[in-house]
Amino acid sequence: MASTPSPSSYIATGGAFERDASYVSDRITKDARRPEHGPVDGDLWPVEPGRYRLIAAAACPWANRTLIVRKLLGLEDVISVGMPGPVHDSRSWSFHLDPDGRDPVLGIERLQDAYFRRFPGYPRGITVPAVVEESTGLLVTNDFPWITHDLFHEWQEFHRPDAPDLWPAELRAEMDEVMERIYTEVNNGVYRCGFAGTQEAYDAAYDRLFTALDWLEERLTDRRYLMGERITEADVRLFTTLARFDAVYHGHFKCNRQKLTEMPVLWAYARDLFQTPGFGETIDFDQIKAHYYVVHSDINPSGIVPKGPDPEAWLTQHGRG
Amino acid sequence: MASTPSPSSYIATGGAFERDASYVSDRITKDARRPEHGPVDGDLWPVEPGRYRLIAAAACPWANRTLIVRKLLGLEDVISVGMPGPVHDSRSWSFHLDPDGRDPVLGIERLQDAYFRRFPGYPRGITVPAVVEESTGLLVTNDFPWITHDLFHEWQEFHRPDAPDLWPAELRAEMDEVMERIYTEVNNGVYRCGFAGTQEAYDAAYDRLFTALDWLEERLTDRRYLMGERITEADVRLFTTLARFDAVYHGHFKCNRQKLTEMPVLWAYARDLFQTPGFGETIDFDQIKAHYYVVHSDINPSGIVPKGPDPEAWLTQHGRG
Repeated sequence: MASTPSPSSYIATGGAFERDASYVSDRITKDARRPEHGPVDGDLWPVEPGRYRLIAAAACPWANRTLIVRKLLGLEDVISVGMPGPVHDSRSWSFHLDPDGRDPVLGIERLQDAYFRRFPGYPRGITVPAVVEESTGLLVTNDFPWITHDLFHEWQEFHRPDAPDLWPAELRAEMDEVMERIYTEVNNGVYRCGFAGTQEAYDAAYDRLFTALDWLEERLTDRRYLMGERITEADVRLFTTLARFDAVYHGHFKCNRQKLTEMPVLWAYARDLFQTPGFGETIDFDQIKAHYYVVHSDINPSGIVPKGPDPEAWLTQHGRG
Repeated sequence: MASTPSPSSYIATGGAFERDASYVSDRITKDARRPEHGPVDGDLWPVEPGRYRLIAAAACPWANRTLIVRKLLGLEDVISVGMPGPVHDSRSWSFHLDPDGRDPVLGIERLQDAYFRRFPGYPRGITVPAVVEESTGLLVTNDFPWITHDLFHEWQEFHRPDAPDLWPAELRAEMDEVMERIYTEVNNGVYRCGFAGTQEAYDAAYDRLFTALDWLEERLTDRRYLMGERITEADVRLFTTLARFDAVYHGHFKCNRQKLTEMPVLWAYARDLFQTPGFGETIDFDQIKAHYYVVHSDINPSGIVPKGPDPEAWLTQHGRG
């Protein structure tokens, strides 16, 4: 699952890491209509400004997608945001950075309170991103790929006038393929390296990851963005992993064939996005490093957080576009 | 001490790392004369071809100095070499790569056997480099800075005819200062980062290390080598840390402001040395990574060894000289 708190162990002892991909898959749709794509086995909730609170966390790449898309589409006044801090205990992400350690709208200390209010004794990981109904404090969904999908497709009447077309209909088939490969090979690929429980599992994960990064380096050589000349959801999904690459994945997860700064096309592409309104301001390198290096105590028992690398490099000229 | 086996913990719990700098300081000198520099509180042994065996280990930066100097001076036929493997147990470096797990000349399984033969119950770390008398199996010295010093100053009649002047007399005073700073800030500085037991100790260590690397980047901008146009012992001492920087210190020891490959002058300088006969052939990146990532189990409990970075980069053109 996405950034799941766990009692003590993240490494997949004796084998390869496999992500638990079971989520609460309710959907929030225009007039609670049946969506054209994605899971429909959960409940349907209607789009309504001011009704929902998006719980993200600056550290988490899966939550990061939602923060970027909300900004790109201009939904800040329509959907509020609560932010758990970078570290969490074995039970839950918590609002340890907020006054009195409580989310100021929901009034809860731990995100698990919203999960338990909806499903008492909820047995899976308490993950971000999660959407919570403000008035009841009930979890609505934590199914991250469909959260951003629906922010685009279902909330269109509330988008800002010049919002980008993050899901161009004519590109959808190819985009789904690109995003699937990015998900399995890159977004999840870095975790497969970091949580591998054997040398063999790690070695295989490393090769898969860098094969995919080589493909992306090539693909982006003659395209400004993954799908052409416009930013799409695919770019958002790749960006959140690239933004964390040198800060945590390179060292902490041993994804160290190269740093991102040593893959010239991907590095320029990542800076281009970082410097685009909606992207860079969602990145907090201190929270990212604090999360990975402190929470994964079976990988970094000392809990010491590296000082490098220097984030100023993200503001250098990228030369694209 | 230099690459000391330890029962289980390398991190200096609760504080800053301090190296135990107590060594067996016997000297091997021409005709067992009293040396002009360095410790004289131990015994004096005479220079004699075929009498001594240098126990090094490809993984260890302190031992690496001796392997380079022996080659630069052409002493291969005069002083033999035994090589413990990259990993060791809590008691000692061992000859686990040799046939039957024994050094073929000394016949011992563990380097500690030579220490104990000389000093039964020797209480300190069993470190490399160590010089052992072949006929008796007795440890002679493990005082690494003086081993290379004496290879140059005391064994001159056995040097090859065109051996470099590693200790130019007219530069000695400045060279001692440069080498002292390299020792405390760089050679030992990376360990101070990696073995720090608190965030504060690590942060201070990181700043000290990169302050020194900035000084070296500047110093080497208009000098091919540390002391000018010729290779000296100072270069040997800096090289062995630089060679390990991206392979282990950057990630494993959290020395991650930049990789060596991102410090252009130092990186070109390091490649220049690597490509000089006597240097690169002593570097075994697989053994280096296996040693640090497996032996320091309190830093890397999984024991998984990173695949990167690609060592081929060391063979690229350096553009110096």
